[in-house]
Amino acid sequence: MKPDTRTQLTTVSVATLCTALFKRGLRRQFIQDVHPLDPGKPNMVGEAFTLRYMPAREDLNTIDVFKDRAHPQRKAVEDCPPGAVLVIDSRGDARAASAGSILVARLMVRGVAGVVTDGGFRDSPEIAKLAIPAYHRRPAAPTNLTLHQAIEINGPIGCGDAPVFPGDVIVGDGEGVVVIPAHLADEVAAEAVEMTAFEDFVQERVMAGQSILGLYPPTDEANKVAFEAWRKVQGR
Amino acid sequence: MKPDTRTQLTTVSVATLCTALFKRGLRRQFIQDVHPLDPGKPNMVGEAFTLRYMPAREDLNTIDVFKDRAHPQRKAVEDCPPGAVLVIDSRGDARAASAGSILVARLMVRGVAGVVTDGGFRDSPEIAKLAIPAYHRRPAAPTNLTLHQAIEINGPIGCGDAPVFPGDVIVGDGEGVVVIPAHLADEVAAEAVEMTAFEDFVQERVMAGQSILGLYPPTDEANKVAFEAWRKVQGR
Amino acid sequence: MKPDTRTQLTTVSVATLCTALFKRGLRRQFIQDVHPLDPGKPNMVGEAFTLRYMPAREDLNTIDVFKDRAHPQRKAVEDCPPGAVLVIDSRGDARAASAGSILVARLMVRGVAGVVTDGGFRDSPEIAKLAIPAYHRRPAAPTNLTLHQAIEINGPIGCGDAPVFPGDVIVGDGEGVVVIPAHLADEVAAEAVEMTAFEDFVQERVMAGQSILGLYPPTDEANKVAFEAWRKVQGR
Amino acid sequence: MKPDTRTQLTTVSVATLCTALFKRGLRRQFIQDVHPLDPGKPNMVGEAFTLRYMPAREDLNTIDVFKDRAHPQRKAVEDCPPGAVLVIDSRGDARAASAGSILVARLMVRGVAGVVTDGGFRDSPEIAKLAIPAYHRRPAAPTNLTLHQAIEINGPIGCGDAPVFPGDVIVGDGEGVVVIPAHLADEVAAEAVEMTAFEDFVQERVMAGQSILGLYPPTDEANKVAFEAWRKVQGR
Amino acid sequence: MKPDTRTQLTTVSVATLCTALFKRGLRRQFIQDVHPLDPGKPNMVGEAFTLRYMPAREDLNTIDVFKDRAHPQRKAVEDCPPGAVLVIDSRGDARAASAGSILVARLMVRGVAGVVTDGGFRDSPEIAKLAIPAYHRRPAAPTNLTLHQAIEINGPIGCGDAPVFPGDVIVGDGEGVVVIPAHLADEVAAEAVEMTAFEDFVQERVMAGQSILGLYPPTDEANKVAFEAWRKVQGR
Amino acid sequence: MKPDTRTQLTTVSVATLCTALFKRGLRRQFIQDVHPLDPGKPNMVGEAFTLRYMPAREDLNTIDVFKDRAHPQRKAVEDCPPGAVLVIDSRGDARAASAGSILVARLMVRGVAGVVTDGGFRDSPEIAKLAIPAYHRRPAAPTNLTLHQAIEINGPIGCGDAPVFPGDVIVGDGEGVVVIPAHLADEVAAEAVEMTAFEDFVQERVMAGQSILGLYPPTDEANKVAFEAWRKVQGR
Repeated sequence: MKPDTRTQLTTVSVATLCTALFKRGLRRQFIQDVHPLDPGKPNMVGEAFTLRYMPAREDLNTIDVFKDRAHPQRKAVEDCPPGAVLVIDSRGDARAASAGSILVARLMVRGVAGVVTDGGFRDSPEIAKLAIPAYHRRPAAPTNLTLHQAIEINGPIGCGDAPVFPGDVIVGDGEGVVVIPAHLADEVAAEAVEMTAFEDFVQERVMAGQSILGLYPPTDEANKVAFEAWRKVQGR
Repeated sequence: MKPDTRTQLTTVSVATLCTALFKRGLRRQFIQDVHPLDPGKPNMVGEAFTLRYMPAREDLNTIDVFKDRAHPQRKAVEDCPPGAVLVIDSRGDARAASAGSILVARLMVRGVAGVVTDGGFRDSPEIAKLAIPAYHRRPAAPTNLTLHQAIEINGPIGCGDAPVFPGDVIVGDGEGVVVIPAHLADEVAAEAVEMTAFEDFVQERVMAGQSILGLYPPTDEANKVAFEAWRKVQGR
Repeated sequence: MKPDTRTQLTTVSVATLCTALFKRGLRRQFIQDVHPLDPGKPNMVGEAFTLRYMPAREDLNTIDVFKDRAHPQRKAVEDCPPGAVLVIDSRGDARAASAGSILVARLMVRGVAGVVTDGGFRDSPEIAKLAIPAYHRRPAAPTNLTLHQAIEINGPIGCGDAPVFPGDVIVGDGEGVVVIPAHLADEVAAEAVEMTAFEDFVQERVMAGQSILGLYPPTDEANKVAFEAWRKVQGR
Repeated sequence: MKPDTRTQLTTVSVATLCTALFKRGLRRQFIQDVHPLDPGKPNMVGEAFTLRYMPAREDLNTIDVFKDRAHPQRKAVEDCPPGAVLVIDSRGDARAASAGSILVARLMVRGVAGVVTDGGFRDSPEIAKLAIPAYHRRPAAPTNLTLHQAIEINGPIGCGDAPVFPGDVIVGDGEGVVVIPAHLADEVAAEAVEMTAFEDFVQERVMAGQSILGLYPPTDEANKVAFEAWRKVQGR
Repeated sequence: MKPDTRTQLTTVSVATLCTALFKRGLRRQFIQDVHPLDPGKPNMVGEAFTLRYMPAREDLNTIDVFKDRAHPQRKAVEDCPPGAVLVIDSRGDARAASAGSILVARLMVRGVAGVVTDGGFRDSPEIAKLAIPAYHRRPAAPTNLTLHQAIEINGPIGCGDAPVFPGDVIVGDGEGVVVIPAHLADEVAAEAVEMTAFEDFVQERVMAGQSILGLYPPTDEANKVAFEAWRKVQGR
Repeated sequence: MKPDTRTQLTTVSVATLCTALFKRGLRRQFIQDVHPLDPGKPNMVGEAFTLRYMPAREDLNTIDVFKDRAHPQRKAVEDCPPGAVLVIDSRGDARAASAGSILVARLMVRGVAGVVTDGGFRDSPEIAKLAIPAYHRRPAAPTNLTLHQAIEINGPIGCGDAPVFPGDVIVGDGEGVVVIPAHLADEVAAEAVEMTAFEDFVQERVMAGQSILGLYPPTDEANKVAFEAWRKVQGR
């Protein structure tokens, strides 16, 4: 994505982005049923770096496997580029953890932009307090070895029923997380900024008592005119 | 409902109302698995005005459909009477939004008493801050067009596995939402006020160390006497 | 459990305990999908005292059954020993309540250490404010009679897919609840204290910028040495 | 139940019995989501003898536990009375077996009237061929030790969300299984025989082209008369 | 639909129709998770006539309601036009019946083309033997009054997550049921006939040992030529 | 696996193999909730060759993608070795097809030993008639493009919550499918043959009226002796 795109994406909502994608025929880019551990954080924006889990076979997932420095879970945490978002395919299974506070702290220190799993985190109260956005389904105290084996770094995955390719642009806000295909990120971000200006105008008019009919969408010409005037005043 | 009934219903809990309905053989009036976006609001009370969604067929749910002022979703928002609660049948599907902050703000400005869906809202952090109670299953950023087509205004529906007829009295608190059949609202409200007085008395006694046996329910005559005395002191 | 064990268990996390149990081949001791009504409380620790619900048959679950002082739900509340945790098998069904604020207040006053259900509580906002830890799946306003019949006190049960035997040690924190088999409580608590010291050391190092490779687990000898030095300084 | 009741229950359908129970306010006696392994068998009728499983703790469920002759699963198979139906509470979990063909064959040889689980059987193709009716959710090859620990014989249980007390009368047909409270078995059986006669008459009339209006139920007096005439002819 | 369309639709598969709809951007027309009670029947084809259930409120759903000749369930059975398919919206809830053998027999005698519910039928073994195609999720012995209240005849509904409008063309085979929007029925039927010819050709070639590469789809010109020759020989 | 192993595995049941794996600490090798399209076929045995689907992004999954001869779904069908079993990770999602009859016929002609998906097949009635074992969750008429994008051939996957590595030995019977880790195949097969002999002996004794106590397992020495004698007579 272009340098400006990242900035733009910090100012728009996941809901607005979903609508921009819907207009392009993409209906399944919202990661279903994940939420922020700390809903008060600013937007998470970054390119997807992925980790895939498969079901754990017991003999391959003893506590000793972490002695291997090349273990994919640990390697993913050290390899995820600063500014990227680590997206974890946990097959929607939150019965065991996808990661815990030590790994998420390491991601934070390394400058990673955020972390998402369609499973759950352990140490979730601690992760909520770290200065890195994190999204999951629900807390999961059992170690990942209990059910998940990290098997692939940075391949295409599913997360919360959404398709995620490495390099797709991931945006999270207080509501959830959306996956923007890499080639659409710049145009979708620009369009979302425009949409947000209009929605802010509409919200202001609605709060002032105006009906949504003819305003949202602006099928009354007068509302289009009023919006243009509002933009000038607002400098947007 | 009678004018007093609305006032009474702001002072009792959904749990107490469920028990009053249970005594009348009504076991399925609690809307399952919805919660308030802002649990700190006062009780929501109003007569049901409904909106029903069916699964969206793609060709009938392009972004342009909102240009039609008669679109049922938009019309429902403008038609829902002040003081009523808009109850939305989203077939329990929270993968796409039932509505967003602009529509909910319009409901608020119009004096609507609250809004409930067994799906999810988009712009949920903004809706949580509006001065109107809203209940849903979980946040859902994708536009309603993605999966839901608004098809009927103010007919009988299901919401969270509960039957809802237009005019039924809807009450929500920090725990959830209950549907009181219209013809029972007055008597159930009155009974719930009585039950609440007794439960407050019991809670006070329990906090003071009394056993629940013989007290809750008051099978010991002494507890009935004590309750009557307490009521006089409390003026309830 | 030994007197010290209870104290130790107030200082460690459920996640750490799950790992200690995992090392012993126990992978299913985490109670799935329950959360604290008030996540800010200190750890809940106590021996399990159980209550089992079966599906309610309508004729056996009228409002009058509570007039029987021997009703198992009410009896369990009066019988649960101070310091114990009441664990309720609600068959994972949160459509009706497992208990409400009056019963939970009574447990609190009696000195019970906490209460857990894999169903839901009614009066959940009030329970959240009581000075007793409580865990459930989601709020459930309908009286337990609607779907649950209390049938057995202090037998072996399942709760959130975990096996619970009376006397097992139950620990809850802001993340969830774990079941420690009685005979393992002392050794698991001691081990968890050790693990927590190491994890605190690791977290400190990670926050200071160190890689997790060779540190977590400490396959680099230098990290073992540093940890021992840290312990001395910290007096742990 | 009376001797005649068992005979009567072999001639009526589970659906008819459910309606007779519904008339008495009992709406949850159908065991949800179980089906016969061999749908061609005659009705299963017998008094409930129960077995309850709890989640299996790994250290208590090694392959060696079956060396204990008192293991509740094996004991239940030897203790279940001839003519009874063994009803197993598997918590609706069909990921591991409730029993296999050897145990079911033993039940058959012992004269047990049938077996029901809300989990699954292993060796299901073989069980389907045995001369004993068996009902489950779906096949489950893993040994019960994998997830289930047999914990209680002949106590009250839930099975497929239905309440089951020892001695309740269990009836299964090609459609499913219903639980008749013991004290109602005689009257419900008699009523079902009457209802079946009427439904057979109605079915015959419908096949002959008559409308259901006025016939089902027989609000037209003429249909009542015709039914009485039909009964005489049929000798029912 | 045109007279020929019905005939054409008896000769093609639901899978082929789904692909024809997919090409037109319609991805959700397959009724999810229903199957034929008798998989051996010929294709079901007819225009949709609908019935909608809402959750049953206990006081409105006593056994006496059927004495009302205008009860929507009974009325729908008498009103559904010959040649149409009765499609029932049971909200995907198969815990109680959508209909039983007497009503389905009446539909059959009246010349109705078939019946579909996303719930379950009671008397399912008898319905399977009737000469009318019927599709459901699973058998459900409890009367519909237990959980379902018939509320609307021939309005737009959802069935198995598919949108169904009255007059849409419903096709069922041994695999499942698809909903063809009314305005597309003729062209989709014609296209499916063409596709079926090609797929039959491909299947024949594959059985003879040819690779699918270049054949399916026919990116090799030679395969297009071979198909045209095959059509001439086959007279298709 | 050794040449004999394949033969041995055609003679034992999936249930027996699950027990042999359970004894080795492997509890999750049964592919959950899949069943044979034709339960009458002989055992399926072969080494796993895998295909992984991710959620389909609409712009990457138009009908034209199959014109690419390198499309992973089509390539997998041509590349799967004779004698292997194609195991498809469909993320447990049976709302769209994993494959249809043409592809499965091609697998059959190429000598592939079987095909398994934790989703569903289209053309399932036709696949059931082919001379190749096929297992799925339920029929799914919509083309795979609707929800699934084939993304990886012969990597490690999950299928029905079981871990599957390429080369693992897959065995299916009338009940379901089990995954035997490659390195255990020979020893597990041999052990299962032994276990099957014993179970056949036990089944014979049980049918003759013997109690399971002391027999299954053979804690009575007499039963061990009898088994040895039986083996000699049977030549097993």
